Amino acid sequence: MDVSQRSAVPAFEVMRILDRVAELRAQGRDVVSLCAGEPSGGAPAAVHARAERIHAERADLGYTPALGVRQLREAVAAHYGRWYGLDVDPSRVAITTGSSGAFLLAFLAAFDVGDRVALARPGYPAYRNILRALGCEVVEIDCGPAERFQPTPEALEAAARSGPLAGLVLASPANPTGTMVRRPDLERLSTWCHEHGVRLVSDEIYHGITYPEDPADPDARGVCAWEVGDAAGDGPGRSAVVVSSFSKYWGMTGWRLGWALVPDDLVDAVDALAGNVALCPPTPAQLAAVAAFTEESYTEADARVAEFAATRSLLLDRLDRLGWGNVAPADGAFYLYADLGDRLGAASDSSAWCADLLEEEGVAVVPGADFDGVNGGRYVRLSLAAGRAAVAEAVERIVAFQARR
Amino acid sequence: MDVSQRSAVPAFEVMRILDRVAELRAQGRDVVSLCAGEPSGGAPAAVHARAERIHAERADLGYTPALGVRQLREAVAAHYGRWYGLDVDPSRVAITTGSSGAFLLAFLAAFDVGDRVALARPGYPAYRNILRALGCEVVEIDCGPAERFQPTPEALEAAARSGPLAGLVLASPANPTGTMVRRPDLERLSTWCHEHGVRLVSDEIYHGITYPEDPADPDARGVCAWEVGDAAGDGPGRSAVVVSSFSKYWGMTGWRLGWALVPDDLVDAVDALAGNVALCPPTPAQLAAVAAFTEESYTEADARVAEFAATRSLLLDRLDRLGWGNVAPADGAFYLYADLGDRLGAASDSSAWCADLLEEEGVAVVPGADFDGVNGGRYVRLSLAAGRAAVAEAVERIVAFQARR
Repeated sequence: MDVSQRSAVPAFEVMRILDRVAELRAQGRDVVSLCAGEPSGGAPAAVHARAERIHAERADLGYTPALGVRQLREAVAAHYGRWYGLDVDPSRVAITTGSSGAFLLAFLAAFDVGDRVALARPGYPAYRNILRALGCEVVEIDCGPAERFQPTPEALEAAARSGPLAGLVLASPANPTGTMVRRPDLERLSTWCHEHGVRLVSDEIYHGITYPEDPADPDARGVCAWEVGDAAGDGPGRSAVVVSSFSKYWGMTGWRLGWALVPDDLVDAVDALAGNVALCPPTPAQLAAVAAFTEESYTEADARVAEFAATRSLLLDRLDRLGWGNVAPADGAFYLYADLGDRLGAASDSSAWCADLLEEEGVAVVPGADFDGVNGGRYVRLSLAAGRAAVAEAVERIVAFQARR
Repeated sequence: MDVSQRSAVPAFEVMRILDRVAELRAQGRDVVSLCAGEPSGGAPAAVHARAERIHAERADLGYTPALGVRQLREAVAAHYGRWYGLDVDPSRVAITTGSSGAFLLAFLAAFDVGDRVALARPGYPAYRNILRALGCEVVEIDCGPAERFQPTPEALEAAARSGPLAGLVLASPANPTGTMVRRPDLERLSTWCHEHGVRLVSDEIYHGITYPEDPADPDARGVCAWEVGDAAGDGPGRSAVVVSSFSKYWGMTGWRLGWALVPDDLVDAVDALAGNVALCPPTPAQLAAVAAFTEESYTEADARVAEFAATRSLLLDRLDRLGWGNVAPADGAFYLYADLGDRLGAASDSSAWCADLLEEEGVAVVPGADFDGVNGGRYVRLSLAAGRAAVAEAVERIVAFQARR
């Protein structure tokens, strides 16, 4: 009896770090962790209040339609009006079990076994791991500082020369880099995909967590892939699958609730697959999440973004003291992805550097190897979610650590 | 840009029926629906109370470990001591996003693209649809009344002659038939699988919803696949993946919470896949579900089973009046699966018969085609979840409907 070959998923380096953090804390060590991939603080008060009421009433929380309750689909559709001025038909909104559920359904609906799907390296590792588990061939696009860590049509053109691409996974703001794809670049990418029959899957889960120079810029919260060519109504934008979530902007990671905007030609497939693969997204979360779209909840979420912004400013102000090499422009999300440059010192790679930092100074950051199997060994990812005090303390400790090496 | 071939999942006949039920009710028709695949009444009071408290406290419901919170894994392990006398290591319990999440992870971890996996026909359609979406070849084992609608080693032997099998999905009690695999039969099947390198995936989500002749029988709640050969500690049982859920016995369908007992050799794969495919099961549900294992909650769930038993007795008492052909012995679950026999009359198949019944008498039942693409056209599935009054009324209407044909 065998274990499948497709389950040979590489373990995340961060898991080793997190295990060690727990051990050190159990020993009484004061550890500052900048590893978190989730905001602290939890869901908006109105969402909790609605959930509390649902359970107080002992509501019969049975299955919902596979694509979610109508009220929430309508609320998500209205959100696209509010943030992007987009008119979205609620029947094109699929509520999913987190963005994870949306990616799974999008990949199953759009790609067959053997299909080649492109994505940026560095990038969120679950994209490639899910795609490989589903039998797709992952085509990594090497994206460095010169491309702001994002794919270009030219790079896609080059990748397509070794075989046609079926899809592109794009993330803006991206994890781990935080870089965003600006409107003209998104238009070029979207058009290229449309012309080459390549399905764009646009990860927009960090939309709203952005640090625009001009907050009045209509693109300040991120540009939605469905905006491309929308004015004409026949542009390439609406052939993309847009993936988003309640996890980051609203701080609802553990609730496992996200959504996808689904192109016309994929709706039936996504509906049928969702019914079989997941039955429906979690019902209590669906009913409570309607309250995420109240003024009160938007205000609460924006306050959290302001706190991230303050933490980010603090960190950027102290970058000189760290003396690292290239730092990705963190347009959004709550990460800083940096090349350690000369500060890598005698460490064999950033994984070893991170392990030493944790042992010697009690600071935990994520090594780049989780996001980039080629160049990640020089990079680290710091999360802003820990807040200003923790980030300030971490910087002091890292400076001391580097001074000793 | 294409829709994937693997998303060509057949639509469920029941969806058409349910849509029509909604239309008729909107027109003011009095419709009795025996379609439900979920119990009414919802979660135990203690589970709701715990969920209410979690939200009242505005708990920070972040990600949990991919396989769930330790406290719930321990509670599930203890449940196997209570019901089966089994000693289960909590580290072998994977909490999942419903049993759907458990099947997805089990299939990914155990089977590769192209692997042949056997399952009973009739059976729950999502097994075959998920397996096909994952690129596996589904080998349907024709299971009729003579085999109590369950696979036999002889049938597996025959199926393996056209190519080696990688797995067997077994359900007891099964949906739609309700039949159970008794201990000696489970031992024979488990041993056959073990000897032939075939991974057994045992669906036990209806355990506890059973109608034993002798309630003191130690097998009354169902036999767990991990019990086989357990006394010796080296039997074939523990190479099976056992899948179960909070949905049916505890009435928590919409909460999307289930679990798997994972064999030693698959634990690392399931853990890695779960982290990538799902991140973690819903956190609020995990924290609340610990209260499902209190005496109070077991008592509440058992009361629901007693109600199903009373409804089942009523229906069995009136079977003569319906005059149908073969009826599957409903040992458990809350369904009755019956061959319409001569009562099919002039209808081309049970789908047409069900459509006529709904229009003429306002009774909704599920045609067998959803469960069996070959012989399902003669069968219907009735759900006991609607309760005694609804089932009694449905029988009267069906008798009248048949008398007119």
